[in-house]
Amino acid sequence: MTTIRAWAAAGPKEPFKPFEYELGALGPDEIDIDVDYCGLCHSDLSMWANEWGRTAYPFVGGHEVVGRVREVGANVAGLTVGQKVGLGWLSKSNLNSQQSLSGDHNLSPGNEATIIGRHGGFADIVRCQWVWAIPLPEDVDFKKAGPLFCGGVTVFNPLVQFSVKPTDKVGVIGIGGLGHLGLQFLNKWGCEVTAFTSSPDKEKEAREFGAHKTLNSRDPGAWKQAKGRFDFLLATVAVTLDWTRLMRTLAPRGRLHFVGAVGEPVPVHIPAIMGGQNQISASPVGSPAVTAQMLDFCSRHDIAPMTEQFKMSDINAAMEHLDAGKARYRIVLENDFD
Amino acid sequence: MTTIRAWAAAGPKEPFKPFEYELGALGPDEIDIDVDYCGLCHSDLSMWANEWGRTAYPFVGGHEVVGRVREVGANVAGLTVGQKVGLGWLSKSNLNSQQSLSGDHNLSPGNEATIIGRHGGFADIVRCQWVWAIPLPEDVDFKKAGPLFCGGVTVFNPLVQFSVKPTDKVGVIGIGGLGHLGLQFLNKWGCEVTAFTSSPDKEKEAREFGAHKTLNSRDPGAWKQAKGRFDFLLATVAVTLDWTRLMRTLAPRGRLHFVGAVGEPVPVHIPAIMGGQNQISASPVGSPAVTAQMLDFCSRHDIAPMTEQFKMSDINAAMEHLDAGKARYRIVLENDFD
Repeated sequence: MTTIRAWAAAGPKEPFKPFEYELGALGPDEIDIDVDYCGLCHSDLSMWANEWGRTAYPFVGGHEVVGRVREVGANVAGLTVGQKVGLGWLSKSNLNSQQSLSGDHNLSPGNEATIIGRHGGFADIVRCQWVWAIPLPEDVDFKKAGPLFCGGVTVFNPLVQFSVKPTDKVGVIGIGGLGHLGLQFLNKWGCEVTAFTSSPDKEKEAREFGAHKTLNSRDPGAWKQAKGRFDFLLATVAVTLDWTRLMRTLAPRGRLHFVGAVGEPVPVHIPAIMGGQNQISASPVGSPAVTAQMLDFCSRHDIAPMTEQFKMSDINAAMEHLDAGKARYRIVLENDFD
Repeated sequence: MTTIRAWAAAGPKEPFKPFEYELGALGPDEIDIDVDYCGLCHSDLSMWANEWGRTAYPFVGGHEVVGRVREVGANVAGLTVGQKVGLGWLSKSNLNSQQSLSGDHNLSPGNEATIIGRHGGFADIVRCQWVWAIPLPEDVDFKKAGPLFCGGVTVFNPLVQFSVKPTDKVGVIGIGGLGHLGLQFLNKWGCEVTAFTSSPDKEKEAREFGAHKTLNSRDPGAWKQAKGRFDFLLATVAVTLDWTRLMRTLAPRGRLHFVGAVGEPVPVHIPAIMGGQNQISASPVGSPAVTAQMLDFCSRHDIAPMTEQFKMSDINAAMEHLDAGKARYRIVLENDFD
């Protein structure tokens, strides 16, 4: 038996309070992680409020964990006690599904998510299947790395999946927790990067993250100039935009890709995307192998989330800050259990 | 000067009547084709009725031509007088566009279509830029080959563009002029092929074209079983279906691809396609190189459209037959100018 100290909410949007729970013996393919830092993600907010009807209370969120391996199960190879690892949205996959056997663990049916039907990383210890504990390169900043394991891989993965090319002209829609990482990745990927934004005050910062150009979405002339321009558009927002106007900015063979869970259906006018052989797609996080590729890419190119740090005991202030849309750009909690 | 004898409509849905027009001297990169056969396509109907607001009258339709090279311009290489060729939807491309230089002539901006702003193949002679006159292999049935140059390449092209694999489970939606060719191509491509149809009377025929399975779209149990099943769905219809239900039948990484110009917007629920990393796409005809690949594939695998033959002088009866939805499955006109 292992006793876990955590922060839990008793009901939807109830404050997080200290909470303890017990875990049974470590399974042969499981590991326990001593949590050092845990990022906050919008899906923590959604789960906290039970927006998706999938939350069990007491609710312990947190799925952007970095920490050190505390204990390894009998069948675990390749991880050693004390090693730095990260854990993201997924905590367990059926390893003999066709998807996992193909390297697409993240697309495997029946995946277990770190904060659904179990407790997450707002805690001193978190458990997972070994495959989802991804080793952290030494030169990736430990304090800031948490958000890479959900937000980071969510925007990195489509570059791999859809073979975005360094010669592509790309656009990032929405410069926030996901978008500010998208700009960094795509700049180092070799692309010509345009940041779409409706806030002129974000333009300077977008350029610092890696945008070569900005498109002010309130300027009709800018849309006219952008017609047929982009090979790849990364939509990181969750709100409804004028998708038809955005699709008109796609070049022949261009793709509009979604990593934000846009609520309202996106209307696709088939004749309008047919002439240019355009594509619309969406994707969730990434596989263990792609997550490791991302970490290596971050290490080689000095890419990191811009974070605000809170003590884990200040979790309620941190969640409020995120909920108010004030995070610039990701929040990380530091474990301060004594 | 060359005098062309043709069949033209004086206005929307007016009957086709004999019509003559003159063409100037052959340009250096042009060829004239003696028309032997010309297929009828739904877009001939749309253009005849001026549904797209792009028709000039007198209107000479016809963009599924097969014939023999009559004359070649000074700069034309690789085509000789008397050689069998086909001409489809496109008749001229800007050869120094980025798309043409990349082999994507069909996606090049400013392409000229065979029946827009010029006269098509309901005639004894038709002219085009050399690149769009594709040589016909000797063992492809000359009488039936016309529909391959528009309908055929429209369904073949996405198999190439999106790397459909012989191990894929695929579905064809709509068993008509396009779908009956899709079934043949996908069967010989090595895939497991399912025909989606609401007409049980088409099931037997779908199997003869190459379907291994059929899915009766009026059977709720069939939809339940099909959930998460398909790697590639080819939508050949132009009407509105329950697209959300169709997207639920996509496997992880699965694609719903449109080759029919569906009029109403297709609503895409992003969270529903995100978990499986699904894709929605559309494409128009194919490039000269892909058209040549298709002809070689037809030759090697004995693939041909199922056609009904009319004399070109019976064009009005043929158009009426097509308009009534009675074509099984493509109509070909035989040039009977004396």
